[in-house]
Amino acid sequence: MSAAPCRFEADGQRVVLDSPTAMPQASTFLWNRRMLLQLNCRGYATAQFMQPEPAKYAHAPTLEARTFMQPEQPYYAHHPGRFCYVKDEDGPLLFSAPHAPVNRAPDSFAFSVGTGDVAWTVACDGIEVELAVLLAADDVAELWTLRVRNRSRRTRRLSLYPYFPVGYMSWMNQSGAWRADLGAIVCQSVTPYQKVADYFRQRDFLDRTVLVAERMPDAWEANQAAFEGEGGLHAPDAITGQERLSCGDALYETPVAALQYRVALEPGEEQEYRFVFAPARDDAQVAALRARHLSARDFAEAAAATASYLDEGRGCLRIRTPDPWFDGFANHWLPRQVYYHGDSNRLTTDPQTRNYLQDHMGMAYLRPATARAAILHALSQQEASGAMPDGILLVEGAELKYINQVPHTDHCVWLPVCLQAYLDETGDDALLDEPVVDRDGRGASVAERIDQAMQWLLRQRDERGLSFIAQGDWCDPMNMVGWQGRGVSGWLSLASAHALGLWADICARRGRAAEAAEFRQGAQAFNDAMNAHLWDGDWYGRGITDDGVAFGVAADAEGRIYLNPQSWAMLSGAADPQRRGRLLAAVDAQLVSPHGVAMLDPPYTGMRDDVGRLTQKFPGSAENGAVYNHAAAFYLHSLYHVGEADRAWQVLRAMLTWPDAAECVQRGQLPVFVPNYYRGAWRLHPRTAGRSSQLFNTGTAAWLYRCLVERLFGLRGDGAGLRIEPQLPSHWTRASAWRRFRGAEFEVEIERVADATEARVWVGGALLAGGRLPSVEAGRRYRVRVELPA
Amino acid sequence: MSAAPCRFEADGQRVVLDSPTAMPQASTFLWNRRMLLQLNCRGYATAQFMQPEPAKYAHAPTLEARTFMQPEQPYYAHHPGRFCYVKDEDGPLLFSAPHAPVNRAPDSFAFSVGTGDVAWTVACDGIEVELAVLLAADDVAELWTLRVRNRSRRTRRLSLYPYFPVGYMSWMNQSGAWRADLGAIVCQSVTPYQKVADYFRQRDFLDRTVLVAERMPDAWEANQAAFEGEGGLHAPDAITGQERLSCGDALYETPVAALQYRVALEPGEEQEYRFVFAPARDDAQVAALRARHLSARDFAEAAAATASYLDEGRGCLRIRTPDPWFDGFANHWLPRQVYYHGDSNRLTTDPQTRNYLQDHMGMAYLRPATARAAILHALSQQEASGAMPDGILLVEGAELKYINQVPHTDHCVWLPVCLQAYLDETGDDALLDEPVVDRDGRGASVAERIDQAMQWLLRQRDERGLSFIAQGDWCDPMNMVGWQGRGVSGWLSLASAHALGLWADICARRGRAAEAAEFRQGAQAFNDAMNAHLWDGDWYGRGITDDGVAFGVAADAEGRIYLNPQSWAMLSGAADPQRRGRLLAAVDAQLVSPHGVAMLDPPYTGMRDDVGRLTQKFPGSAENGAVYNHAAAFYLHSLYHVGEADRAWQVLRAMLTWPDAAECVQRGQLPVFVPNYYRGAWRLHPRTAGRSSQLFNTGTAAWLYRCLVERLFGLRGDGAGLRIEPQLPSHWTRASAWRRFRGAEFEVEIERVADATEARVWVGGALLAGGRLPSVEAGRRYRVRVELPA
Repeated sequence: MSAAPCRFEADGQRVVLDSPTAMPQASTFLWNRRMLLQLNCRGYATAQFMQPEPAKYAHAPTLEARTFMQPEQPYYAHHPGRFCYVKDEDGPLLFSAPHAPVNRAPDSFAFSVGTGDVAWTVACDGIEVELAVLLAADDVAELWTLRVRNRSRRTRRLSLYPYFPVGYMSWMNQSGAWRADLGAIVCQSVTPYQKVADYFRQRDFLDRTVLVAERMPDAWEANQAAFEGEGGLHAPDAITGQERLSCGDALYETPVAALQYRVALEPGEEQEYRFVFAPARDDAQVAALRARHLSARDFAEAAAATASYLDEGRGCLRIRTPDPWFDGFANHWLPRQVYYHGDSNRLTTDPQTRNYLQDHMGMAYLRPATARAAILHALSQQEASGAMPDGILLVEGAELKYINQVPHTDHCVWLPVCLQAYLDETGDDALLDEPVVDRDGRGASVAERIDQAMQWLLRQRDERGLSFIAQGDWCDPMNMVGWQGRGVSGWLSLASAHALGLWADICARRGRAAEAAEFRQGAQAFNDAMNAHLWDGDWYGRGITDDGVAFGVAADAEGRIYLNPQSWAMLSGAADPQRRGRLLAAVDAQLVSPHGVAMLDPPYTGMRDDVGRLTQKFPGSAENGAVYNHAAAFYLHSLYHVGEADRAWQVLRAMLTWPDAAECVQRGQLPVFVPNYYRGAWRLHPRTAGRSSQLFNTGTAAWLYRCLVERLFGLRGDGAGLRIEPQLPSHWTRASAWRRFRGAEFEVEIERVADATEARVWVGGALLAGGRLPSVEAGRRYRVRVELPA
Repeated sequence: MSAAPCRFEADGQRVVLDSPTAMPQASTFLWNRRMLLQLNCRGYATAQFMQPEPAKYAHAPTLEARTFMQPEQPYYAHHPGRFCYVKDEDGPLLFSAPHAPVNRAPDSFAFSVGTGDVAWTVACDGIEVELAVLLAADDVAELWTLRVRNRSRRTRRLSLYPYFPVGYMSWMNQSGAWRADLGAIVCQSVTPYQKVADYFRQRDFLDRTVLVAERMPDAWEANQAAFEGEGGLHAPDAITGQERLSCGDALYETPVAALQYRVALEPGEEQEYRFVFAPARDDAQVAALRARHLSARDFAEAAAATASYLDEGRGCLRIRTPDPWFDGFANHWLPRQVYYHGDSNRLTTDPQTRNYLQDHMGMAYLRPATARAAILHALSQQEASGAMPDGILLVEGAELKYINQVPHTDHCVWLPVCLQAYLDETGDDALLDEPVVDRDGRGASVAERIDQAMQWLLRQRDERGLSFIAQGDWCDPMNMVGWQGRGVSGWLSLASAHALGLWADICARRGRAAEAAEFRQGAQAFNDAMNAHLWDGDWYGRGITDDGVAFGVAADAEGRIYLNPQSWAMLSGAADPQRRGRLLAAVDAQLVSPHGVAMLDPPYTGMRDDVGRLTQKFPGSAENGAVYNHAAAFYLHSLYHVGEADRAWQVLRAMLTWPDAAECVQRGQLPVFVPNYYRGAWRLHPRTAGRSSQLFNTGTAAWLYRCLVERLFGLRGDGAGLRIEPQLPSHWTRASAWRRFRGAEFEVEIERVADATEARVWVGGALLAGGRLPSVEAGRRYRVRVELPA
């Protein structure tokens, strides 16, 4: 096995990749409350901002479809990106930083990913270029620093060409030019529209894209075609064929923001340039970008503001384990990803209801007030029937788009599932009595609304007692199982049982015995129906189609076993110990793959008219046979739930990208986020199996964080207290954690000791009965020692 | 002035461009009834086919928006195209034919455009490559021939790599692989969908893209990224870095169809390869493509069938003038473009009503039965109010899209305007009595329906007697003049007057005196209203906004004068001779530009809230200040109408691309079609002024053809007879024409003679009174001599 292609630095707060070719898809992302910037190690980039729907200011070279965020974004020479060409005026040297478009093999390379910034350092023939970016704290603006250093022993005369492609903006009013008065290349356009109403909706759009330069360039080019000429992007005519850029404009032509700085550097000398790349509305906004963001002090303030912003989402857990990689990821990157979801709502105005609730389940551990507001906001959109809508509208004028226009039946399930986490973390039972007024003006308390949601789940059952699936449940593309109104979902039936059970417990705790009994009985009925109709002998089936065909069962050649029903049967209690043993064995034998636990197996290779879009997703992508981390996280949660700590650790480990060189490279994934999937179909397509989607939008993050806090380190709220019940993998002899909980801090040492036969917990030196601290005092610092059997 | 960059060959039936860089945007197109292939001289291509909406089988490298056909399509390295790399196995030579992506300067180059085929011949260092394509006659399939010749004096060992990028097909089931059993690279996908209903609509789509090879290649590559590697498209790793392509596949990756043939050629030796590039549904269709299209005989039959198909649209006129360039264009390319419009309906399922009617006005001269059917079909969609819809639906399930969802008020105008041409050409007055049943089941004759349409126009007037414009008239983007329901269109008022006048004439001829009087009175009322409210002193204004502001008037700094009102004031008779003199002078002074007659001047440089989208189109593009050829053609028609033959010739000449080197290169336009616009704003933006849109969808073609037939050569049907009234430019001393007319043929010689004081027409040696042949005998061949004053 070769050396790891990437490494942690700064106590895990930076990840550094040393090659532009080892993992050419490797990416990270920066965000603030208004924008998102995904950066690829080679310099390609995708930026979005909200106005109020997601919009772009750097485009593909063709008119792009508006779509949801796609996994495995393909890159190509003219893909949007941020680059700097470097030409040696006294020799043949030409390269581009970070790597594309010239793709010259560098003498050294580092893609250094921080939590709030990204920097590249690229050296070719004695010239070192550093490109670094961070985002303005509360503005839509990329703040770029370019540094060039002469690492050779002679004076070097260079031309530097920051090259920020802008792409095909619009078929209306597209142009680009240098504006000396603004010190910027200003590319203009008008977002296309045909209906008059759209004009009023769009007229305040930030339809300009600008590159504002702190230093006056020696020359510039605003015309993409003129920049390239016959040479193409790898050797643009404007660079190789002429001394100076032509200072040309783009007039209804594809614009570009390219500058030229001519510089002579003595040995060891360094020069620094700063730029702001951003959308803008008009001249005044361009001037404001310059005034607000372009000085060295502005950059430093933005860095500090970013750090402060990220600090708000630093999470409630710091750990130290035998695996420093795991520590770095868990302490910095995982809470960061949870925070991104919860604070940005994935840069959408209509998050899927299940995503919105789960994302804010994660926020319960970071910033509980945000989670609380989200639960109330979601419930304010509950329908009169008790059903939850397919998406939660976040801004005035937003509408349900894409998949949210397709009816799914699982949204109610997530209310108690996510609420439980929030209540455990905060003890804020008062939330249950909060009144929530819906769009029809009907008022009801949170508890009453959840009652109604549970009753809706109970009503949406067929004569067997299983949940109708309509055009899908959590698995979006399973859109033809029940579109005719008869098909049912095994997973959803189990998830309903679990949700009902959780809610029954909360009702019982709150003294609502009748409701508790009703919901507990409902949960039991779901479990019984599953055991009667979808226990397939060694595992639970996935569902039954409109035509009465059970699927996800042993008789199927493809899609024979699905992971989700097994996980949730353990959570809901449908699986007794004997069934649990069988289904775990089936998962081990059929779903555990070299790249993680697959969501189903074998992957579909062709269309099954009664399953739907799922079967048309390529084997190995997304839901079809992939290691779909969200499902793997449910499985993880369920394994901890039944005390399978070692199995859980294996699943957890496989979900994360370790610096194991082979798997890391195969995945092409830096350990800076957990992606929504790794490709599956490992028997069918070993070449691509394991590859990361590079898509960081996923409910996985929140569940992983929950599992780490509540299960692996076992520091879970419980009524007024804290349950202390770590489930370390057996090969860990010790670990420690800092936990913030309801205003208190816990310093936890966990150790395996030879003489322990069961877990023993001391708090402040006193042995704790049942591992449960009955109450927690805010502001206090607790010292906890846990001894586990060896 | 340098030499012309392109030339006619084969009596004008081919146009040859000798450089890949002189006019890098130059393009042509091939089509059959099911598909369209636009080809750029450098090898870039855009193909569309109907299923039933326009679809693609070679894509951009990113998810593209579905849109109407865009002008000035920007090209970039990964744009779809058809290429062949050539590598010398014994030396450093690497080039690609036609030119991209390597862009090596060739030793010789020819882009040879035929009416039914396109061929490139490219030579580098003694290796000559010929690439040629034609379309299957009645199938969606490109038939490609690759020939390579050794023009050097030594044996050459080469690898040839046909490279057909397929691009980003879909986020569902995208893949590509060589299929030995089919002898093809087969790229698969599923057109994305989320709503169940779309599945049923799309499941028979041709979702594969295949490159079927007649000869077994030595190696292949189906993976775009693997093909390129670090080298990029100009020097792909798969070609420069290895002896053989890797025979790899694409699995949810961007696919490509690349083959490798290794060949040793003796001096003078030639090898030929044939390919079919096409979409397909399944294996059987791929096998059928091979079986039906791949042999040399199949190619020859396709060429013959294409020639036969094109012959159906050869038109009714052959001319010989002092200008052979003009002859070539008028005899072959112009009728071809008219035929394309009328036979393909622009590859749309909902053509704009005005386009549909005007395209079929052109068909009246080519294949009148098609024009007749189109008029009846359009009228079958007339609304109960008499209004015509914004688009005509051509297939079951089609719906109004894009601009056709925006209410425009001019559609009724085109009924008499186009009908007149049809009736003049065919004498088929029986059409007027044809019953037409509309969607509500109401039956009415054609004449009654046109009465209703005219009455609708008369109703849609404001208190001044001017036509409401709603969200636009012929000028689509003038969408805010009257969106509040009050604004009026000067042009539309004049067009209504003209339409009413034409229809009144037809009514009078048919003995419907009352209707004739009603409509003539209506026409007069429109003309009077225009003269009262929108005669601005030297020209007619364009309209009056919702807020009562006249625009297109001398008081305006931008958009001061519009061409259309002037043209139609001459047609409608609103302009008396004095006004006509003034408006012609105004057009000469303000709208005549070095690149043709602009549609308005000065171009708008900023938004005018009361005009609309027009002002947001970049100055020089499309309607905003461009030489918009459709408007120029109206002007041409109106000039002939008032006997301004020399002015007309200047306008006509400027609309076509002559082999004048400077202007031809500035336009970047081959004389194989007339584009919808040349850019304007010549004072503001001289660099780009004149540039062609490269968009061949335009009503210009039909109007130009009509002007050539009926006016320049003056061979216009008139009741039962033929009016012979040429309007040659004064510098032509002679010209001749062959004219097919109602089954007869006319051989016409026109000559200027010194002693003539007025035109004299002889038919069969007999002098014709008034230049009108009272009746025409089908099957007969007439010899016509016209003497014009010198």
